[in-house]
Amino acid sequence: MCSSAAASPALDDIEEGIALRPKFDAAGLVTCVTTDAGSGDVLMVAHMNAEALEKTIQSGEAWYYSRSRKRLWKKGESSGHVQRVLEMRIDCDQDAVWIRVDQAGGAACHTGRKSCFYRRIDRDASGEPLLTMVDAERQFDPDKVYGK
Amino acid sequence: MCSSAAASPALDDIEEGIALRPKFDAAGLVTCVTTDAGSGDVLMVAHMNAEALEKTIQSGEAWYYSRSRKRLWKKGESSGHVQRVLEMRIDCDQDAVWIRVDQAGGAACHTGRKSCFYRRIDRDASGEPLLTMVDAERQFDPDKVYGK
Repeated sequence: MCSSAAASPALDDIEEGIALRPKFDAAGLVTCVTTDAGSGDVLMVAHMNAEALEKTIQSGEAWYYSRSRKRLWKKGESSGHVQRVLEMRIDCDQDAVWIRVDQAGGAACHTGRKSCFYRRIDRDASGEPLLTMVDAERQFDPDKVYGK
Repeated sequence: MCSSAAASPALDDIEEGIALRPKFDAAGLVTCVTTDAGSGDVLMVAHMNAEALEKTIQSGEAWYYSRSRKRLWKKGESSGHVQRVLEMRIDCDQDAVWIRVDQAGGAACHTGRKSCFYRRIDRDASGEPLLTMVDAERQFDPDKVYGK
């Protein structure tokens, strides 16, 4: 995320350098934003620990760390919906990663939608927030894919 | 972020409902991904507390919560580079928000670049990670804009 720290020209400088120096949070994680390389849509937001980051860089497929399950996971390990990474970037203060992927099966969300972001935040007549389904068609049946 | 909780059809259901029920973390924050409505590029990743989320929804301009400065901030309050929100979405488990914005001044990053993601993660000849500058031209001089 952006902060207003001054930059220096050292190669391993966090903001201006060319060395990868991920700034993991207290839980050992960086945030990862995953977008569809074709449409540009944000597919999901997840986290990577050092091992997930390393495996993603080395394998060219997306690995994450699940905070709820407290374990490393390869995207698609259950569903087969792997994400092939076409480009990987890191942000100014090196605490967030952006990956552009080719999404197998056409759906990134465990609910069966293309993207986890299938609801728009609108406002109702009185100005209160209300969600509207958008691009919410299911590409697969999660009960079948995850065997519930 | 995606988890494998079962969905129910209740209107205020976290995953399938149309009520906004943000799942703030222990620090009271949700993650926000901000993309450029024109190019689709990810501009920045930041956080919103309940007040920032509310102000963004009601004003149509992006407000965030700075973890380092521990305060609410309106994007562009110092630089004038405000973000007009064209669309706002929330993810399946309601702990991440995606906003598509029109970025005033053409640059979202405090370093003067269009996006905070101006470095690609590549690998050198021995397979080790190495960063490469991409789309890294400065759109403004941060020393002038922030008055350092």
